[in-house]
Amino acid sequence: MRAMPDLHAVKAMVFDVFGTVVDWRSSLIADFTRWAQTHGIKADWTALVDAWRQAYVPSMDEVRRHPENGFVPLDELHRRSLERLVEQFGIANLTDLHLDYLTRGWHRLDPWRDSVAGLTALKRNFIIAPLSNGNVALLTNMAKYAGLPWDLILSAELFGHYKPDSETYLGAARLLGLRPDQLMMVAAHNDDLFAAQALGLKTAFVPRSTEYGPLQVRDFQPEGSWDLVAKDFVDLADKMGC
Amino acid sequence: MRAMPDLHAVKAMVFDVFGTVVDWRSSLIADFTRWAQTHGIKADWTALVDAWRQAYVPSMDEVRRHPENGFVPLDELHRRSLERLVEQFGIANLTDLHLDYLTRGWHRLDPWRDSVAGLTALKRNFIIAPLSNGNVALLTNMAKYAGLPWDLILSAELFGHYKPDSETYLGAARLLGLRPDQLMMVAAHNDDLFAAQALGLKTAFVPRSTEYGPLQVRDFQPEGSWDLVAKDFVDLADKMGC
Repeated sequence: MRAMPDLHAVKAMVFDVFGTVVDWRSSLIADFTRWAQTHGIKADWTALVDAWRQAYVPSMDEVRRHPENGFVPLDELHRRSLERLVEQFGIANLTDLHLDYLTRGWHRLDPWRDSVAGLTALKRNFIIAPLSNGNVALLTNMAKYAGLPWDLILSAELFGHYKPDSETYLGAARLLGLRPDQLMMVAAHNDDLFAAQALGLKTAFVPRSTEYGPLQVRDFQPEGSWDLVAKDFVDLADKMGC
Repeated sequence: MRAMPDLHAVKAMVFDVFGTVVDWRSSLIADFTRWAQTHGIKADWTALVDAWRQAYVPSMDEVRRHPENGFVPLDELHRRSLERLVEQFGIANLTDLHLDYLTRGWHRLDPWRDSVAGLTALKRNFIIAPLSNGNVALLTNMAKYAGLPWDLILSAELFGHYKPDSETYLGAARLLGLRPDQLMMVAAHNDDLFAAQALGLKTAFVPRSTEYGPLQVRDFQPEGSWDLVAKDFVDLADKMGC
């Protein structure tokens, strides 16, 4: 083990998924472009995907601010945002099945090229799981599609709270029977790590500087005192002694 | 695919674990006997293990009958039963750490010899998960120990209800985004399958006639109209066309 002394307690590593493990933007643009050609549907898919992702945080914040309305899984939030956006973008003639196909695009995302190799190495020494705002079905289907070797699926849906609500991070520790400091949160987003660290989790930052394409304005660098910074998942496994 | 026509809808297979996937009785007796020798602790471990398992259903039924007291995870039920039993068996000088070790014996169970091969084959075509009364940490640690290649961990703990409460079976379908008939319950116990079938799940029976050793009095044969009966998990994979 080459892990730093204060990381010796870590038993499980939990991962942000969208952007950290999978390249949602390139995957969706390529998928929808291919699909639209075979269906004769014209649209600016890059603009749609970017606008769809922009709707992500506000749609979850709405759920976070109004717990009295109950938890709404991400598939449903994606679908609602999409229905609004196709109207806004003037994409005509989309059937219910078309909208289903597009919404389930979030289940068919390709991993960054180092993700599977790094996770496979880390799995030898650690419990590995997503800790994502994606719902369980989405994360399960994505793992089958992308070959992500998770030990289990941890999702905001299990806790009825979206990140960065504390219930998600502490819920993960509780379900695994671990103290927060036995859990390491891995993310390409500093905000996710600030929330995890405040609750006692260990933190690792892996930059994904092309996640948002030309729209990326942040998360090029670590902004907090993270326990580890790695250049990719293979480097992360190496630094964790795997 | 050689699966029967009415099984073509099946997308996910969920498994009872204790007895169906792992041989809890032989595993615990061997583990405790070895451990006790190195610690100089004398006891009839076979009798203790059998009595401990006898306490399993009553302890869960107590939780099921009194939902107002909240859900109690299986690790905690196991621990409570153990504390009563060591007293009853007159096993002296056990420390808190000893009791922890014994309780976590349920995390260190060996699979039946066909389990890993069968699950590995089934995983190619289906989502595979436990659907067990074991808590998430127990099932996760067991999977690491025994090499069970689950896609995700489904547990009574996630639903706050023990099998055979309907919330467990229907909760599994809901989290996977599937209809009940797209889910197949696999168990060595007819009662589990009766509960699953009544809710619309498909069912497969795999007998484990040595599960309870000389105390086994039931589940030698299928007792319902199960969709499949297989002699072991390799046969199950074969019958599911994997």
